[in-house]
Amino acid sequence: MVANNVLSAAPLNNDGLSSSNTNAPLQNSFINLDQGDTVLFESYWRKMSDECAVVIKGCELLSYVSDNASVCWFMKPELRDVIKRLHALVGNAETQDGHIVIGNGSTQLFHASLFALSSSSNSPNPINVVAASPYYSGYPDETDIVCSSLYKWSGDAKVYDKNEEYIEIVTSPNNPDGSLRRPVVNKKLGREGKLIHDLAYYWPHYTPITHKANHDLMLFTFSKCTGHSGSRIGWAIVKDMDIAKKMTRYIVMNSIGVSKESQTRAAKIMEVLCDSYDQNFKLGSKNSELFFEYSKRLIKERWEKLREVIKENGDLILPKFPGAYCNFTKESSETYPAFAWLMCKKDEDGVSYLEKELKVLARSGNRFGSGPRCTRINMLSRGDDFHEFLKRLSNIKEISY
Amino acid sequence: MVANNVLSAAPLNNDGLSSSNTNAPLQNSFINLDQGDTVLFESYWRKMSDECAVVIKGCELLSYVSDNASVCWFMKPELRDVIKRLHALVGNAETQDGHIVIGNGSTQLFHASLFALSSSSNSPNPINVVAASPYYSGYPDETDIVCSSLYKWSGDAKVYDKNEEYIEIVTSPNNPDGSLRRPVVNKKLGREGKLIHDLAYYWPHYTPITHKANHDLMLFTFSKCTGHSGSRIGWAIVKDMDIAKKMTRYIVMNSIGVSKESQTRAAKIMEVLCDSYDQNFKLGSKNSELFFEYSKRLIKERWEKLREVIKENGDLILPKFPGAYCNFTKESSETYPAFAWLMCKKDEDGVSYLEKELKVLARSGNRFGSGPRCTRINMLSRGDDFHEFLKRLSNIKEISY
Repeated sequence: MVANNVLSAAPLNNDGLSSSNTNAPLQNSFINLDQGDTVLFESYWRKMSDECAVVIKGCELLSYVSDNASVCWFMKPELRDVIKRLHALVGNAETQDGHIVIGNGSTQLFHASLFALSSSSNSPNPINVVAASPYYSGYPDETDIVCSSLYKWSGDAKVYDKNEEYIEIVTSPNNPDGSLRRPVVNKKLGREGKLIHDLAYYWPHYTPITHKANHDLMLFTFSKCTGHSGSRIGWAIVKDMDIAKKMTRYIVMNSIGVSKESQTRAAKIMEVLCDSYDQNFKLGSKNSELFFEYSKRLIKERWEKLREVIKENGDLILPKFPGAYCNFTKESSETYPAFAWLMCKKDEDGVSYLEKELKVLARSGNRFGSGPRCTRINMLSRGDDFHEFLKRLSNIKEISY
Repeated sequence: MVANNVLSAAPLNNDGLSSSNTNAPLQNSFINLDQGDTVLFESYWRKMSDECAVVIKGCELLSYVSDNASVCWFMKPELRDVIKRLHALVGNAETQDGHIVIGNGSTQLFHASLFALSSSSNSPNPINVVAASPYYSGYPDETDIVCSSLYKWSGDAKVYDKNEEYIEIVTSPNNPDGSLRRPVVNKKLGREGKLIHDLAYYWPHYTPITHKANHDLMLFTFSKCTGHSGSRIGWAIVKDMDIAKKMTRYIVMNSIGVSKESQTRAAKIMEVLCDSYDQNFKLGSKNSELFFEYSKRLIKERWEKLREVIKENGDLILPKFPGAYCNFTKESSETYPAFAWLMCKKDEDGVSYLEKELKVLARSGNRFGSGPRCTRINMLSRGDDFHEFLKRLSNIKEISY
């Protein structure tokens, strides 16, 4: 089967997505590992396909409103409840003191967060928005898309030294390099700015769960939790009621809420996920075939093969990750991020290297506030693409995959 | 059954939605007719419930991407195709020369339109955004939500006289008053600004279809077409490829696309809708029980009862609408808007009158750029609410409904 992400050398659009598709044989075509698609997890959900099925009839879900008693009135109570249940199961975030706000992906909640955190500012100037490099490539463009007067992208948090209000985005594990992060700016200035904790990858298939995150504003996304990126479901856990109301207002003003179909489906899939762990616990069975363990094994296998091939390749370096004990899987392991942050050993342009030597499309370190030596590679792409990528990297015969 | 929209006198949030709900007996409670919910159409979709059912399995719709070959790459081709099919059936918009862009409701596409139309401007100042009063209450707040430097709300198009770039929103039929609209500004200044045609209500259940709308940028929404407001599906028909690309970029930057579940369901429902007309045509049957005719009958009945009661009430006035021949239903009729624009005969505050005299919550004319004498009433609310509203207005015994 020709993988969907095998693309011609058509120019990428601004989102790093190739704008065309070919059905050329894999070995002759470009492989696009620039995107953040999460289709690796599809094999798990294929096993659970019927169990997770939702049926939505024609007369259902007509109304804008789900719960008039809630701040986030377009949110289905069952979705809110299963989000809390999932966090309680995994132990990765405290939800008890928090208000849940949902959005069309955590991307929309990022915008809602900027709006909410900046709109109470007394400063006549836009609030500075910063993140430590390498930062997620979407943050600068998303922040400045409509040139808001409330906030503006102000670059690398590591070098931020203005004595002005700021919002720091702390992404942990980080996209693109998988590192575990803490706020940077407050250390330097001796005071705290406002923080957005983007915890999209703080799940046990990517990284050990060492503690219950308990920050003022935490963002999560269904896309990276289960791999269902097409659903466009994200949620925020927000301590301050006023901030939660402002975030809700943003979502209302922007799109009058979030798809009820997606909410229904996300709730179903998360419920099946939680049920599977509860049932296993009751039976005293091992969890090795359940979602997080199964998916972790797949990602880990890819990382191990990639490290093997990179070692032989000689031109490229991968980051190392410290080990830690995971309270959820009950074992020690390292981080296996959703992206590989590949650096050229020599001072050369990583994107050009990959394009010319390997016909592989990746996202340049320039877009992450780092130099061009680094590139970001998607570790969750379709099997055919990843296999072919390894093959070209190693320039050896078929690897047993 | 106590209607969902029966609410206490809790303060409305900024979106005009009551923030609480009671189960008090209908006659003692406030009725909220402020919202724009479309649940009147539920009875039709209940008949079609199984035929329109969608089943979505656990392993489906994982990817962000639907069609890499399309400008709007997150849009499912089947949705695009059925949108075109529906417009061809109804004859309300030309799609042949246009690019389809989808969004999370036409609200998100409104934002996308402002971004796209303003981002090519050479002016150092924000582009003025105007609409003729009474204009949709959402436009000012939505336009200025993040205080963009690219565009700003500049009020009533009827009095706009600046010699600066502008974007005029033309809503036809208009929300709140149901009038049929054309651009206003260009007549006064002898030149055209950029136009956004919001045609949310240009469907045969609300108004005669007299011609195929064929503007540069037209917005439609699934919410007002079929009543499925919870799905958050809107679409734009855009002639200029560059504008379509920019609108797509906005949707990507804002929410990385649109729920695939909603797209799947909207496509199914629209397909069933179109099929029903095609089948009737083949059988030579009458269309009176099909969606648009059925729904039109329901709305018309409500308008006729409302007019009857208003005439007896004596304190309030309703607008009149001219008749026209509808090319789709093949009959002459008037407009039966989704909202009633109620004006007090005396110079008094309409919202106060309705709240104090009738315990009815409606949206003040102030929010539409008109004075406080007018209020907007939702004509598509649940049957219980509307019936009770009529009863209170007429202060007579049970009306046969």
